[in-house]
Amino acid sequence: MITIAPPVSSPEIRFHGGDVSTPAGFWMHGTAADLGDHGREDVMLLVSSQPAVFSGLFTTNAVRAASVVVTEAVHRRGISTAGIVNSQNANALTGPPGLADATAMQTLTAEALAVGPQTVAVASTGVIGVPLPMDKVSRGIGELAARYRQGQPADGMAGARAILTTDTGIKRLAATISLSTGQVEIGMVVKGSGMINPNLATMLAFFATDAVVAKPALDRMLRRAVDRSFHRVSVDGDQSTNDMVLIWANGAAGVAVSTAEDLKVFEAALTAIARHGARLIAADGEGASHLISVVVRGAASEADAALKARAVARSALVKAAVYGRDPNWGRVLAAAGAVGEGWDPDRASLSLNGWDLYVRGQPVKADETGWSQAMERPEVEWVLDLAAGGDSAEAWGCDLTEGYVHINAHYRT
Amino acid sequence: MITIAPPVSSPEIRFHGGDVSTPAGFWMHGTAADLGDHGREDVMLLVSSQPAVFSGLFTTNAVRAASVVVTEAVHRRGISTAGIVNSQNANALTGPPGLADATAMQTLTAEALAVGPQTVAVASTGVIGVPLPMDKVSRGIGELAARYRQGQPADGMAGARAILTTDTGIKRLAATISLSTGQVEIGMVVKGSGMINPNLATMLAFFATDAVVAKPALDRMLRRAVDRSFHRVSVDGDQSTNDMVLIWANGAAGVAVSTAEDLKVFEAALTAIARHGARLIAADGEGASHLISVVVRGAASEADAALKARAVARSALVKAAVYGRDPNWGRVLAAAGAVGEGWDPDRASLSLNGWDLYVRGQPVKADETGWSQAMERPEVEWVLDLAAGGDSAEAWGCDLTEGYVHINAHYRT
Repeated sequence: MITIAPPVSSPEIRFHGGDVSTPAGFWMHGTAADLGDHGREDVMLLVSSQPAVFSGLFTTNAVRAASVVVTEAVHRRGISTAGIVNSQNANALTGPPGLADATAMQTLTAEALAVGPQTVAVASTGVIGVPLPMDKVSRGIGELAARYRQGQPADGMAGARAILTTDTGIKRLAATISLSTGQVEIGMVVKGSGMINPNLATMLAFFATDAVVAKPALDRMLRRAVDRSFHRVSVDGDQSTNDMVLIWANGAAGVAVSTAEDLKVFEAALTAIARHGARLIAADGEGASHLISVVVRGAASEADAALKARAVARSALVKAAVYGRDPNWGRVLAAAGAVGEGWDPDRASLSLNGWDLYVRGQPVKADETGWSQAMERPEVEWVLDLAAGGDSAEAWGCDLTEGYVHINAHYRT
Repeated sequence: MITIAPPVSSPEIRFHGGDVSTPAGFWMHGTAADLGDHGREDVMLLVSSQPAVFSGLFTTNAVRAASVVVTEAVHRRGISTAGIVNSQNANALTGPPGLADATAMQTLTAEALAVGPQTVAVASTGVIGVPLPMDKVSRGIGELAARYRQGQPADGMAGARAILTTDTGIKRLAATISLSTGQVEIGMVVKGSGMINPNLATMLAFFATDAVVAKPALDRMLRRAVDRSFHRVSVDGDQSTNDMVLIWANGAAGVAVSTAEDLKVFEAALTAIARHGARLIAADGEGASHLISVVVRGAASEADAALKARAVARSALVKAAVYGRDPNWGRVLAAAGAVGEGWDPDRASLSLNGWDLYVRGQPVKADETGWSQAMERPEVEWVLDLAAGGDSAEAWGCDLTEGYVHINAHYRT
């Protein structure tokens, strides 16, 4: 897995290693319930010591997993005390029995924790079209809930491992945020790593905070943070049946996020953490050897810049060129030209990791050695200036390698 | 290259081996002008013995090659006597000097053939962003025009080879059509094979007919034929800067296509030839080991069926599964669910080469041997019935292999 530096801390926001069990009043753990064949943890339980304000965003695919249906209802009610997650099996395209299984996951968790069933969020990821082995899932839930009731310490790493599929490493980040009336924490865990595309592809992202946040503000900040992070990442252009981004705000820190300034700082922290999660997902795309970052500047609108940045990031030809360390700027311009508003290639400019490739319509004479060395870096950043306006956006993807083909040709139905 | 059977002939339409030099009054040849490094033909000249009614469709990419600008003007005027085509160099993203080079190709050809320069169509394909070596192109044009003036016989195979890039074989088909007042011919040559996506990705397709056809009818029939053929093929989702589909109708057979019945038969033949061209392009997609055909039935509209069929055909996960001979029906349903109108997976059905995989919302118990054998066939056909309406559409793609990655990681800028 490629190493990606975390965001740079500021006086108000200090980033640090941590996860959803970092904020006060949250507990997370994982267990190996033998749902698949990899032997590691595959059921994760998150518990909040008090009911939390809850918000979520969900896949827009017409084929929606049972967990999406169940958890969207929790989001609409707006209160959650726990989340139960399994990997190895998506419980998608499993019909009415699958919906019954997802509901059973919710009910079993609620009973074991003595909370209301309508306050338990459910998420699943893994193979499609195979019934959940509910006996094993049930044992996993029972075991994790017992650990919580017995007061065993949280194990964020075990929980973060339990949600992975073909990911090669855990993905997490936390931040301590200084607000006008005190400090709060936000923690995140996410998983990728194939079937990733804007509009929440196969990704699960969970956020927890001990701040006091009202539901409308939480909904709004989550939507905007996701628009600039998970909606900007593409591994293969496929959108999944199971994606969700969830956030719990349990208020355990006793610090409210309500003034305009505090909301601004909190949203900036949430967005930066989500952006790091998106970059971690792209960097760990199946078979990836490079993280591809695309910045489109000089666009007529942020939406158009984002559309073009995503088009470049998901272009199979650009991805293959990066893998081959070929600074193939023509493919980048062609990918950006295929979508959205018109622009004039004769005025545009393109650079790669700081090297100018194409300046105001003129190709730059190749510096074979310099360009090639620039592409050896684990992160390859294309900056495309359209010279068509004042807005910009970024997007992320990964290169296309023989490894991607191998993984996806042989990952079982 | 996978072998694809031509369409089945009918009493009115007899398909046969042939190309754009097959219809009366057309001449085609190719020559090796040393534009690249592969040593085979790379300049093609097509000449009509009399001015032909002319129509074209062009890439919608904002980044348009110089040849697209030049040839679209010929299409608007509607009359052409010749086409000059080069491979190895796309003459795209080459700015005003590139436009001057494309215009010079047009002028040099017109002078050598003693025809009006505004009647010469120009097409290019190959690497982006590199100036055309005009001295070599000019010699190639001169040599081909001299052969034509000297009355040397046409060589359709040499012409068909000259337009190829990473294609592994020539792509052509012709048909003899029996109309109410006599017989006419249509001939086609096309090239693929990467950067292929709906809206004319990197593809060049040339049609010639000796029928008498009015410009408005020719425009209309070409548009509809392309909508059901080249707009339904995807190799990698990338749209090119250079694509065009052109047709010349020179009237040399002296048989008019004007009655409703004759127009219907002619359009059916044109569509069937174009469909075969699209299938040949998909089957010869870079690195392909399978042609993927996708039929979506039971849709609310043909447009929605086409949108979903294309989404399945271009899904990286479906493509990798076909390569791995994995009948991963969940990926097919998920790809169709990500686009267009809503539908109910609990009512839908899916089959693969005649084997039911999923019937009205129920997964079928796997026949591992039978399913696996079904996927050994060079053409893998998914049929998805949405149970949401009465319309249908088909689309084509190819599997994603290590070969695709290898070709595109190392094809030079």
